[in-house]
Amino acid sequence: MATKAVVLLSGGLDSTTALYLAHSKGLELYALSFIYGQLHDKELQCAQWHAQHLGVKKHFVIDLSFTAWDTSSLTHNAAGNAIEAGNIQRKHAPNTYVPARNMVFLSIAASIAESVGAQYIYIGVSEADYSGYVDCRESFIKAMQAAINQGTERRLINNMPIKICAPFMHLNKAQEIHLGLQLGVDFAHTWSCYRGDSHPCGQCDSCLLRARAFAEAGIPDPLI
Amino acid sequence: MATKAVVLLSGGLDSTTALYLAHSKGLELYALSFIYGQLHDKELQCAQWHAQHLGVKKHFVIDLSFTAWDTSSLTHNAAGNAIEAGNIQRKHAPNTYVPARNMVFLSIAASIAESVGAQYIYIGVSEADYSGYVDCRESFIKAMQAAINQGTERRLINNMPIKICAPFMHLNKAQEIHLGLQLGVDFAHTWSCYRGDSHPCGQCDSCLLRARAFAEAGIPDPLI
Repeated sequence: MATKAVVLLSGGLDSTTALYLAHSKGLELYALSFIYGQLHDKELQCAQWHAQHLGVKKHFVIDLSFTAWDTSSLTHNAAGNAIEAGNIQRKHAPNTYVPARNMVFLSIAASIAESVGAQYIYIGVSEADYSGYVDCRESFIKAMQAAINQGTERRLINNMPIKICAPFMHLNKAQEIHLGLQLGVDFAHTWSCYRGDSHPCGQCDSCLLRARAFAEAGIPDPLI
Repeated sequence: MATKAVVLLSGGLDSTTALYLAHSKGLELYALSFIYGQLHDKELQCAQWHAQHLGVKKHFVIDLSFTAWDTSSLTHNAAGNAIEAGNIQRKHAPNTYVPARNMVFLSIAASIAESVGAQYIYIGVSEADYSGYVDCRESFIKAMQAAINQGTERRLINNMPIKICAPFMHLNKAQEIHLGLQLGVDFAHTWSCYRGDSHPCGQCDSCLLRARAFAEAGIPDPLI
């Protein structure tokens, strides 16, 4: 029986590269995306494109609106609560931070992994090159691994617990882009901008991080 | 400003008593219930009754159907996958086990706690008197506490991280019932049966545990 992986897939640069990496290892793929209240569906469209392109076994799209309780600008961009202007040097979490988002996403990934018998959960977070979100750090991923070890039941798949794989934890985005190109990722079908206009705004944190990454990689961004 | 707590409230015996315990401490209450694919809404109706009775600040009812991926009999009771006959001595998880359910519920509770500025999350799990679910054990709750410490950002409320309170971890259900009565819980408005018929079936694990608890407490179950 094929070894299976659940891949958290937003449709951005990181998670898409993670999907292709898992695919390159011959894993049977279960993609997992969320409609959590983001202001546009451009990322989700990209996620669907890659899931179809790679022929994943199943693409779960879970509707879980954080807007019922959260006031992040990422889900409530409005006058007085606009997405912050980009500043990738800042030390505090930006107002695009969605509380405990990766904890929720990984928990649901763990539930799905148990249900389908997947040994791995892939998540494209990076501590090396991130935007001030605590739930992208290695210490958090390790804590969630411990919680999964304790809180899942049918966890013995090949005598192993479900394992969280965060292969980019210590890579920067430029390194990810090089890896992605090797793996055949078409970055024209990835979306990073927090805003959902026809073209990337070029000004939010996510656009700034992406622009820096492509510049460092010495490769033009196909979206620009 | 009032100290706030998010209380996981299914409408069963444990979580309802947890709600009243948090209320007795003068906390501002945010109840949290889930429509996760359970076969009936009797528990949820009970949850709503108590939330209203105690005048909670807000009752979040989150629609997150595990049926999209899970095959537990609790969400897919059908021919060939019926809820197991009760056997509270069994050592393996019953087929009513829903994968990683408490991990998902606690993660969403953490997200809400961060958003509303709550210091506490109450959960009515018990290791002393449980039904074979790993996610009711103290080792799991401790692991989730560590994950919350690492994975939440706006966690400094009175200089404390969000704390998971599992006050019944080492109580049995009979002790909970005595406590609940002291706190004013009307157990006629709680529902434990996995099935959603007009009366409790008396045969599933949850009915057996409830019956044993009321017998040990020396009190008649007002539902019977």
